[in-house]
Amino acid sequence: MKHAQAENLSPVAGILMGSDSDFDIMKEAADVFVEFGIPFEMSVISAHRTPGDLEAYATSAQDRGLKVIVAGAGGAAHLPGVTAAMTVLPVIGVPIYSRKLSGQDSLYSIVQMPAGIPVATVGIDNARNAALLAVQMLAIGDENLMKAMKAFRDRLAEASRQKTAKIREKLNAKG
Amino acid sequence: MKHAQAENLSPVAGILMGSDSDFDIMKEAADVFVEFGIPFEMSVISAHRTPGDLEAYATSAQDRGLKVIVAGAGGAAHLPGVTAAMTVLPVIGVPIYSRKLSGQDSLYSIVQMPAGIPVATVGIDNARNAALLAVQMLAIGDENLMKAMKAFRDRLAEASRQKTAKIREKLNAKG
Amino acid sequence: MKHAQAENLSPVAGILMGSDSDFDIMKEAADVFVEFGIPFEMSVISAHRTPGDLEAYATSAQDRGLKVIVAGAGGAAHLPGVTAAMTVLPVIGVPIYSRKLSGQDSLYSIVQMPAGIPVATVGIDNARNAALLAVQMLAIGDENLMKAMKAFRDRLAEASRQKTAKIREKLNAKG
Amino acid sequence: MKHAQAENLSPVAGILMGSDSDFDIMKEAADVFVEFGIPFEMSVISAHRTPGDLEAYATSAQDRGLKVIVAGAGGAAHLPGVTAAMTVLPVIGVPIYSRKLSGQDSLYSIVQMPAGIPVATVGIDNARNAALLAVQMLAIGDENLMKAMKAFRDRLAEASRQKTAKIREKLNAKG
Amino acid sequence: MKHAQAENLSPVAGILMGSDSDFDIMKEAADVFVEFGIPFEMSVISAHRTPGDLEAYATSAQDRGLKVIVAGAGGAAHLPGVTAAMTVLPVIGVPIYSRKLSGQDSLYSIVQMPAGIPVATVGIDNARNAALLAVQMLAIGDENLMKAMKAFRDRLAEASRQKTAKIREKLNAKG
Amino acid sequence: MKHAQAENLSPVAGILMGSDSDFDIMKEAADVFVEFGIPFEMSVISAHRTPGDLEAYATSAQDRGLKVIVAGAGGAAHLPGVTAAMTVLPVIGVPIYSRKLSGQDSLYSIVQMPAGIPVATVGIDNARNAALLAVQMLAIGDENLMKAMKAFRDRLAEASRQKTAKIREKLNAKG
Amino acid sequence: MKHAQAENLSPVAGILMGSDSDFDIMKEAADVFVEFGIPFEMSVISAHRTPGDLEAYATSAQDRGLKVIVAGAGGAAHLPGVTAAMTVLPVIGVPIYSRKLSGQDSLYSIVQMPAGIPVATVGIDNARNAALLAVQMLAIGDENLMKAMKAFRDRLAEASRQKTAKIREKLNAKG
Amino acid sequence: MKHAQAENLSPVAGILMGSDSDFDIMKEAADVFVEFGIPFEMSVISAHRTPGDLEAYATSAQDRGLKVIVAGAGGAAHLPGVTAAMTVLPVIGVPIYSRKLSGQDSLYSIVQMPAGIPVATVGIDNARNAALLAVQMLAIGDENLMKAMKAFRDRLAEASRQKTAKIREKLNAKG
Repeated sequence: MKHAQAENLSPVAGILMGSDSDFDIMKEAADVFVEFGIPFEMSVISAHRTPGDLEAYATSAQDRGLKVIVAGAGGAAHLPGVTAAMTVLPVIGVPIYSRKLSGQDSLYSIVQMPAGIPVATVGIDNARNAALLAVQMLAIGDENLMKAMKAFRDRLAEASRQKTAKIREKLNAKG
Repeated sequence: MKHAQAENLSPVAGILMGSDSDFDIMKEAADVFVEFGIPFEMSVISAHRTPGDLEAYATSAQDRGLKVIVAGAGGAAHLPGVTAAMTVLPVIGVPIYSRKLSGQDSLYSIVQMPAGIPVATVGIDNARNAALLAVQMLAIGDENLMKAMKAFRDRLAEASRQKTAKIREKLNAKG
Repeated sequence: MKHAQAENLSPVAGILMGSDSDFDIMKEAADVFVEFGIPFEMSVISAHRTPGDLEAYATSAQDRGLKVIVAGAGGAAHLPGVTAAMTVLPVIGVPIYSRKLSGQDSLYSIVQMPAGIPVATVGIDNARNAALLAVQMLAIGDENLMKAMKAFRDRLAEASRQKTAKIREKLNAKG
Repeated sequence: MKHAQAENLSPVAGILMGSDSDFDIMKEAADVFVEFGIPFEMSVISAHRTPGDLEAYATSAQDRGLKVIVAGAGGAAHLPGVTAAMTVLPVIGVPIYSRKLSGQDSLYSIVQMPAGIPVATVGIDNARNAALLAVQMLAIGDENLMKAMKAFRDRLAEASRQKTAKIREKLNAKG
Repeated sequence: MKHAQAENLSPVAGILMGSDSDFDIMKEAADVFVEFGIPFEMSVISAHRTPGDLEAYATSAQDRGLKVIVAGAGGAAHLPGVTAAMTVLPVIGVPIYSRKLSGQDSLYSIVQMPAGIPVATVGIDNARNAALLAVQMLAIGDENLMKAMKAFRDRLAEASRQKTAKIREKLNAKG
Repeated sequence: MKHAQAENLSPVAGILMGSDSDFDIMKEAADVFVEFGIPFEMSVISAHRTPGDLEAYATSAQDRGLKVIVAGAGGAAHLPGVTAAMTVLPVIGVPIYSRKLSGQDSLYSIVQMPAGIPVATVGIDNARNAALLAVQMLAIGDENLMKAMKAFRDRLAEASRQKTAKIREKLNAKG
Repeated sequence: MKHAQAENLSPVAGILMGSDSDFDIMKEAADVFVEFGIPFEMSVISAHRTPGDLEAYATSAQDRGLKVIVAGAGGAAHLPGVTAAMTVLPVIGVPIYSRKLSGQDSLYSIVQMPAGIPVATVGIDNARNAALLAVQMLAIGDENLMKAMKAFRDRLAEASRQKTAKIREKLNAKG
Repeated sequence: MKHAQAENLSPVAGILMGSDSDFDIMKEAADVFVEFGIPFEMSVISAHRTPGDLEAYATSAQDRGLKVIVAGAGGAAHLPGVTAAMTVLPVIGVPIYSRKLSGQDSLYSIVQMPAGIPVATVGIDNARNAALLAVQMLAIGDENLMKAMKAFRDRLAEASRQKTAKIREKLNAKG
């Protein structure tokens, strides 16, 4: 599956980023939506360079069928918070790392929202977790998605379990 | 409305805290659930002092009807992350402030989860936003709740709008 | 002189704050504008609770005669940056202190703007400097204001000079 | 257009840096001034190695026709603040990144000025924004510059808008 | 000597890591145990991806003959703390470095444990010291190990002493 | 039980602090040793003001029967590290909070020891955990102490369990 | 002994502060100079409000007989560095604490001087150490002062030694 | 000139480092001493691996003719502080950078000494400034050295002055 519009599907999840330089990180959110079969759209909209476009996007999001929005931004990362201010859909923020201030600026700008307008913040550069969180939200009212998430967790556990054998081999090989 | 069990209601949202010293902060989440008519339960369970109780709580949460969990913790704040590891329900983490390290420890311990197991993190001490985020998640599949959230936002805006007149009066009074 | 509207003056400088809890800090900006005879207006507008009001304010600011805007905000302090995104007037940001994260969040959220949309950031809680900076900007094209600023600097120096005698007295008294 | 003196123009904006190792960053301020047709001069003057030269520069700046000064510095970055102390022209400070302390030292040393002497601080290494802010200040009294700034913002928005198509292509190509 | 199981020895020390990406760091703990002849086992167990496995490991550790556990983790590094919550054996935590937040997140998540459940924390990436600390703990009741540790310290001192001659040569060579 | 010397007992654990201003914090370590019946001694020895005394203390510690040392210090907190350099007994470091730098200085100065000489670091001001960790170390070779530690954990869990009822009462009372 | 000028003595050490609000901290430097019989002068001179006065002070310092300067400042603490730039006398900087940024800004602004112009930085608010360091510098060429410093160290050690008895009493009293 | 012992000179300044991995940084201190003709010695002595050697070095330093000590260390950088505790000679500390914690640990461990025992701290990795500070201290009682320092400052200023022409050329070349 590709981008929702490329598949003539109505997107359920929106992925936003402030700049196309964040694409490589935010692509990991798209991968998760593909894995769970969630139609999504992905857009570059800047809270600062195109505030009007962001308003148009956020205020129409629910009517267009979106149920959750994942937004990534770095530095004075206003995109998730401004989006959250203009929709009642849950907005998940991904702080993008920059070597300047080591990502602290992105994290603080996203997570420290004032009372009334929350942003669900995940770890720095962790777009993967942002999308998984979106799936968990969607799964609240969708039994199949809930099952898919449980299966995902089982695969995750299984993959982790394989690692002990792997490192013991490496260790003994060197021993 | 009171605590769900006191009302003979089946709770939809769970509020967890690691220590009863976090009660005054986490109470603000309860207030939000009361305001939106969401049956909730509130418990003190420590990831460190009662890990078995936490496992029992988290692994049975979905079967008991919970749809979302709000967990507050301070310091090496493992409670939200450990809970998230044992349920596929969305878990919202509230970093609790301590003057030691100014809340950085609580925030980092909650938000920097590894890929696969997200915690939806809100601002330091912002239990109010945690509950609002929970309501937004529940509203994805509940039109009435969605309307209630929009009405809440309108009240929030209206209350903010009253403030300009108020500060101008203060200013002119002093002028 | 009071608030511009209270004096039937057309304001030249706008003072914004996200919440009336920031009034005591932002009042110091007003004091500076009073001291320099700059008509100003002061408003509570939240980038998150009333984004539409902020857009109305920012996009009409220049037409209403404003030449500079001072905006104070704390936490995920988006107010100055969002304002700057919607006007070409210079926007001066005042990071408001909170014990949580010691003001780092407010500072980083304001100063780390992306290329293209600057916010002129001053020190934490330093609304006084924000207004002085606004006066310096206005003085670029206003000789009288330039003179007034030089006189202000002379008074500042003189006041500082008085302090040596004062501390030497204290010291000798204790000796 | 080149450096003002190379064009026999009287500079309106001054660009200062403490060391020629900051040239690559500060050059971005020069590029902005070229783009807006603002005559400028660029100088290496150290607050620590050549304090007398800095005094000569700052105290004569206004008489030489300068209207705004952009100063970049790293570490214990005193250059912007010391310049601001010796002129009433607005001084814009650019904190220069160093991996040591991740730029925090440069930022704090520039932004945390005492009441009375402001420095308009921009983001770490963001000399581009420093010059744009200078243009916005100059545009307060210059209608043509104001128009040019609006046109710049339109181009900025347009460039941002092109990016959505671009990332969707990348995404579908991989899909 | 290799991994305990490869030698048919019953392990006395356990080395845990949350992910095999931590192997290169945690291998240094293994090297120390080899050097001191301490049978050890090394496992990848994630507090988040395989919480049940971790519980099985931690609650059975003492019965299986383990006397001390070294656990390395990065980010919201819960592994050492969760392990410590489920055994009374001393748990030594190794914060793993990541450029995001420079290792602060790993360190704070491990060291700031609540009263009642300590984790003995060593420096960032310092798995070597974690194992040496484990040896010192084991040496409390083992005279031979105590002697071996003293001999190790002597070798450490001797190696350090050789360095002065070495740098003086380098210096004079360049002089 | 009181201080070991007051009871004519030979101390097994040493509690050190750099200044008597740390007494109130370090007293919590003493309380733990009293609770577990571990004879201990408590001393003020400064790594900076009385380095010779510290050397005498540390180099004789093992011969005097000490098996573990708990050392608390603030600021450039050298006490634990210097002690660790002069004995092979395990040294547990307690970073003491100061509002200056929020305890970061104490924590970093204690935990970031060079390879070869570990200090087992606990959370800021967490002398209680330091002593519990010491008991866990001593329990490696002492079955009775191991049992006492398990009983302690059971009491800890039980006390935590009481809290849910307590907060639900508070909540319903207010409801 | 009082302030040098009050005693008709020629000062050997200068104590500078940027604001009289730093007096209580900087007074501790004066106390040390009194204790060691070092004639000193104390002045409020601001690098930002009275840059000309600072230049006059710093460039004439050596001719007026000063041998060392202690300078305290907070925030963007330029005073020590600017002074150091205008004299070859050793300048000792005291970062003054402010709750905003917990003193990090003061420390970084003073210590991170560029190559060529050092400031000898002491701990936050540690004016006492600044003066002791000044005495140590003066003692390089003054045998009597060297003896006085050794006697001071002995008294310091003795005072520290008294503390063990004191805390043991407190402990046993409570036991 | 080379290392003092290589020249049969009695060293006046001591350069210490905790590990030979700090040699490349500390070599810059040696270069300064060579430039000013100050006989120096350079040694690797670890506060942790060879505490006895450090005591021997520090307590004999003055008798061996040393007048000032420059000590560089990273992480829990105890070397300068422990040296300062064992001699009344001024000790200058150089915090060595490590990417872990970005040098904050080294800086805090060195600068935050307790009242009574100062370390004159310079910027991270700034061994050059440490040696220049040492020269300034020695110059207090040495007119020739004072002149040499003034000449050094003049050369420093001159070198800085050449840079403006250089960057203007670069700028115009690109223009």
